[in-house]
Order: sequence, then structure tokens, then C-alpha cells
Amino acid sequence: MRPLLDYRADFPILEHTTYLINHSLGAMPRAAEERVAEYARTWRERGIRAWGEGWWEMPRTVGDQVGRIVGAPAGSTVMHQNVAIAEAIVLSCFQPTPARNRVVYERGNFPSVRYLYQARADLDVVVCEDDGGIVDAIDERTLLVPISHVLFKSGEIQDVERIVRRAHDAGAHMILDAYQSAGIVPLDVTALGVDFAVGGSVKWLCGGPGNGWLYVRPDLAERLEPTFTGWQAHEQPFAFEEEMRYAEGAARFLTGTPNVPALYAGTAGYDLIEEIGVERIRANSLRQTDLLLELADAAGFGVASPREHARRGGTVTVHVDEFPAVHRELAERQILCDFRPGAGIRIGPHYFTSDDELRHVVAQIAEIVETGAYVRHLGAVARH
Amino acid sequence: MRPLLDYRADFPILEHTTYLINHSLGAMPRAAEERVAEYARTWRERGIRAWGEGWWEMPRTVGDQVGRIVGAPAGSTVMHQNVAIAEAIVLSCFQPTPARNRVVYERGNFPSVRYLYQARADLDVVVCEDDGGIVDAIDERTLLVPISHVLFKSGEIQDVERIVRRAHDAGAHMILDAYQSAGIVPLDVTALGVDFAVGGSVKWLCGGPGNGWLYVRPDLAERLEPTFTGWQAHEQPFAFEEEMRYAEGAARFLTGTPNVPALYAGTAGYDLIEEIGVERIRANSLRQTDLLLELADAAGFGVASPREHARRGGTVTVHVDEFPAVHRELAERQILCDFRPGAGIRIGPHYFTSDDELRHVVAQIAEIVETGAYVRHLGAVARH
Repeated sequence: MRPLLDYRADFPILEHTTYLINHSLGAMPRAAEERVAEYARTWRERGIRAWGEGWWEMPRTVGDQVGRIVGAPAGSTVMHQNVAIAEAIVLSCFQPTPARNRVVYERGNFPSVRYLYQARADLDVVVCEDDGGIVDAIDERTLLVPISHVLFKSGEIQDVERIVRRAHDAGAHMILDAYQSAGIVPLDVTALGVDFAVGGSVKWLCGGPGNGWLYVRPDLAERLEPTFTGWQAHEQPFAFEEEMRYAEGAARFLTGTPNVPALYAGTAGYDLIEEIGVERIRANSLRQTDLLLELADAAGFGVASPREHARRGGTVTVHVDEFPAVHRELAERQILCDFRPGAGIRIGPHYFTSDDELRHVVAQIAEIVETGAYVRHLGAVARH
Repeated sequence: MRPLLDYRADFPILEHTTYLINHSLGAMPRAAEERVAEYARTWRERGIRAWGEGWWEMPRTVGDQVGRIVGAPAGSTVMHQNVAIAEAIVLSCFQPTPARNRVVYERGNFPSVRYLYQARADLDVVVCEDDGGIVDAIDERTLLVPISHVLFKSGEIQDVERIVRRAHDAGAHMILDAYQSAGIVPLDVTALGVDFAVGGSVKWLCGGPGNGWLYVRPDLAERLEPTFTGWQAHEQPFAFEEEMRYAEGAARFLTGTPNVPALYAGTAGYDLIEEIGVERIRANSLRQTDLLLELADAAGFGVASPREHARRGGTVTVHVDEFPAVHRELAERQILCDFRPGAGIRIGPHYFTSDDELRHVVAQIAEIVETGAYVRHLGAVARH
């Protein structure tokens, strides 16, 4: 088994940057560069032949690879540009009625997901403060329950099992947004029994932008008929038939022409996650976020993210005074992380992060606070 | 001014293939390869900084470039994965009522567009045989008129002006699918006064898959509110606000995270179209399709595409007996084109095609027919 620190060589940015922002844009694996070159080479040399030689199947073959990472069987996961699109397709499968038109969701949902449901006049949106509130709010009027596995702001893991159980008891469908968990927190969509799961590869999967994914529980995929559709969802797209006949499995949740260059770029990151395994990545993540918490405590920083393992995602948020300006100074020192208003500096190590890098970031924050090196950024930061 | 045949050096596939299928997958410009390498280099070296250094704006900056090609002002065109998505966003701006729920469209629309409207129980779809029929069918019950500028099967140009005028008289909105015209047939969405236009770059724009585009007439963009939306459509996406406040212009028709690698790959083709100009490309296209018609007539082939310039798109369809098998033999001889059931072999030269290549393809078809070289493919073709 390759030691995790060996994988540092696969991520060129680590040569000059302390990259602790994998919860936002995961670092690029070196092989992604070869993959996009392969995309261009295929288009250049094969031209139209490329469709028959793999391109057309890619939303499904790449979807199957993501599926293996999140516990989905082959044929149940497909690729889309992003989660907004994936979730709009799910929504298009349902016709709200006055008796069942409630969407029960969490205040902490990612904005795309909020906006999508809030924009619909025929939906009654119920906003809950936490996962416990979601369970309480679900009733027989509930149509859909879109929740996040790990909340994007706080990094807190939600109690998915209880929500799924309650949703199913009430005859509602549950959509799990696993954007902040897939690749860093173990997830088994089959074991959880979720109806739909969505996510993307900008973050922990290190697959870059343009790669959203959609899992549909196989028995649901047999009977649902999305109205947001396209020729790729047809059983025989190249017959150009006048009427839709939906394809089998998750393929019926596709739209039009696939997103080939993004799909090439994405798989290098998934290959590494598959090689290492999410359980091993999670063990290392818990060990390293424990270390971050220890270091933050020792430095006297506040901590604004969950301390319990069961609730902790891949990030740790540490709070110091004037943290936006401190964050700016960190960036100038080639230490990349981000911050969330009202919370603090968000640090997201991944399997290729060294413990020394974690000691380095905490020491640098302490040094920036002590020396007042952040002061020169106060004005610039306030302008945002 | 660079002679058109000089551009052959920009398309590597021409070195070994007679590439006459630009109506399906446009040949790759050499520079696309550098662009995708630049994508990887940016992700690799800049990491998260890339969003602020251009990535986030790309759906709009690349959209503006396509806009220049189709006569759209800056800020009115944005990029999406494909036309099904672009058109679903347009549809989500409207709430059909029993008094206005008709969608008047042509039998020849591309399947994605058909399926999208047919799937909706709240729409009354009226299918017309041709553009004259569309004009006749539009009335005060008509909500949307999605038509194609150039029909994908026959390559026939539609009378867009009359349809726009009739649609507007009746209070309906018109969506022009310019997938088969942008880059080969002059198009000015502003002069035509269309409400929406959509297209993609798989074909004549030579931008490859993953790049659909959506133009929204500027005055409409100020007041429409798509319900199929996402955080990219927000005026301040990075404020992560709880309520949607739509951005200005076509930006409000965006969804979630943009499709960065596809956008990098696409621009090489658009650069060349902008450099040459669509008027010049069209003049050459008419000259070359005239030549193809002459050659086909001389060889005694049937012709199944319009002969009048005003109705002729970028392709010519020639009919010979057993054309699917003839097409297969052409492919084995490294001559790429395609065929349409019931019509014939579809030939799509672009500005980098030489007249000799056109003489070559017609001579080869004649030779294949005369020698019976197609006979060995008859069984294989019939299996499809």
C-alpha cells in the first residue's frame, strides 16, 4: 500500500503552495493534464469517430466510477454539468399537488438548491434550522426533502438515516446533496436507501469543474419520467424518433450532448480516490482534523466547527479576530484556505496534506495575529 | 487576408482524413489542444485562485464571443452544457395557462427540443410540417414557438423573419435553434428580433462538445425570472444569500458551477470564425455546395437537399442506391460524412475544405457504386 504522503508527487501545486482549500476547489492531480490532452488528441485524430469510441457513453461510464465511490450500483449514476442541473431534473419528475407540495429543507442547504425550490410558485418550502428540525417537519404533505450530507458552511455531518426513514414513512422522496462528503466522508447511497443523490467533483473528488453527478435509486429509475429531458435520455437517441421512449436506468435522466472535455478532466481524481479508498482517506482526515483542533486549542484560537467525529466533515474552521484580513495575509504567503463570514478561517486538508503543513498554517496564523501583519489588509478586506 | 486554404494547416485531421462531417462534429482546430492544456495548467498552478482570474466569468466572456458571431450584444449570451439545458431554462420562465399554453413547432425540430416540450402535460404541442405551417398555426393561444434556423435533417433554411413577426403579433415568444446555422449561415439575432436563440459548438463553430449557448433579448432578460436556476444566476453569488436576487442580463439565465474545461476547448474554433467572418465562410460554402450539386448531377446521383441558395444550409445530401453501405465504404477510405435514412449521404464541407476534396468524395461514391465495393457492407449496415 502506497503511503499517503507519496501521493504528494501527484499534485504539482504542492511544490509551491500550502493547499488547504480542497473543500472549495480540490487540487489538480497531475494525470488530469494527460487526460485533457487525450481529449484533444481524440477529437483531433478521430473526429466524429470518437462518439462511437467512448464519448457518447462517458456520462454513464464516468458516472459508474463516481457510483463506485458512493456505493451506487452500475447504471444508477450519470454525469451533468453541475448540481443545479441534476436537482432540476429530479424536480421535473414530480407534479406537485395541493395535497403534496411541500419541500422540507435546511437553512444550510447550498444556494443553488435553495433557489431552485424557492423559485417555484407551486411548491410550499419549509425551511428548518437543523436535521432534527427536518425530521419533525416531514409529514404527509411533503413531496421532496433535499438535504446536505455535510453542510457547506459549517462542515457538519447530518443525520441522514433518520431523515430517510421519516421521509419514506411519510411517502416523500429524499435527495441527498453529497457535494461536501463524496471523497472525504464515507457514503453508501444504497445502504442509506436515499432516493436520489447529487454532488460534483470540484471539491474532495479533485475532478475539477463541469462534473456534477446524479444517482437515482434503481427501482425509481424504472418508473420516473423527467420532463426536463433531451435526446440523450432516449432509448435509441440516434434513431431521432419523434416521441420519447425513456432509456433504462439513470440514462433516462440525461439531457443533450454530453460534456466530454470535463469528463476526461475529472477521472484522474476519481482514480486516486478509488485506489486509496474513502475509509482510509476518512481515517487520515479525522486524525489530521484532530491535530488541527489540538493546534488551534493550544494557540488559543476559537473553533467554529464540530468537534465530535460523528459530526465532523473534512474541514476545521478556526476563529481569530479580523480573520478576513488574516486570511488575506495567508494567501500572500502561498497558504490557500478560505473563510466564512461570522465563523472564521476554513481549513480543508486532503489525503495528500502533510501534518507539517497543518502545523505551518496554524503557526502562520498565530504569527500573523501576533505581529499584526494582517493590519495592512483591513481596508482592502472591508471593501468586499 | 489569409486565403481560406491556408487554414487547412490549423486542422490536423485533414492530414489523413477527408473531413466532410462538420455539420455533425466540426474538425478540431489545432489551438484547441493548447487551450485545454492551458486549462490544466491554470488549475494545476493557480488552484482556487483561478476562479477570480477568469474562470467564474467564462460562461459570460465566452458567451459574448459567440454573441459577436450571431449578432448579439455583449451581456446577452451565456454558455451552458447543451441546447436541452438552454431551452429548459427558457421554458422555466413561463407559466402556461389554459388560455395560452400552445407550443407551435416544426416536425423537423431536433429531438431534444421536441422531447422537452412534449413531456410537459401543461403544454399543448402543435406540430407543423414546415415554416409556412408554423406561421399559419400561431394564434393568441400560442405561448412559445421553438424553431430551427436550419433543419438538422434536410439542411433547409427556414423563413425566420415571417415566423418572428407572426409570433410577436400574437403575443408569443420565439426561440430560434441556430445549431445548424451559427458559423456557416449568416445570422443576426438582433436584426431578426428573436426573443431567444440557442445553439452549440459541436458543429460549424468547431468548438467541440460541452458548449451550448443561450441568447436572451436584452429587454426580456430584464424582466424574466427563470425557475430553473442556480447560484451563478444570483447578482452576488459569493454572498450565499438565502433569497435569489437575479443578476443583470443573460447572467440570470445561468445555473450552477460553470463548465470550465469545455469553455477553454471551445474558443479556438470561435477565434477562427471571428477572424474569417461568417459572410466570407457563407460565400465559400455556397460556391462549394454549388460545385457539389454540379458534380452530383454530372454523376447522375439524386439530390435530397435544397438547391436554392436562400434555402440551402451548409450541407448537400446526395442519394445513390444502398447509400448506407456506400457511406460505410467511404469511411473505410478515410472519407468522413454521414447519412440520413430515406435521404442519402450528407456532405458538410467547411471553410478549410478544398475543392479537390469535394471532387474526391463524389468520384469515390461513383467508383464505389460502379465497382460494387459497397456490397460487402450490405449485411453489416442492415443490422443497424
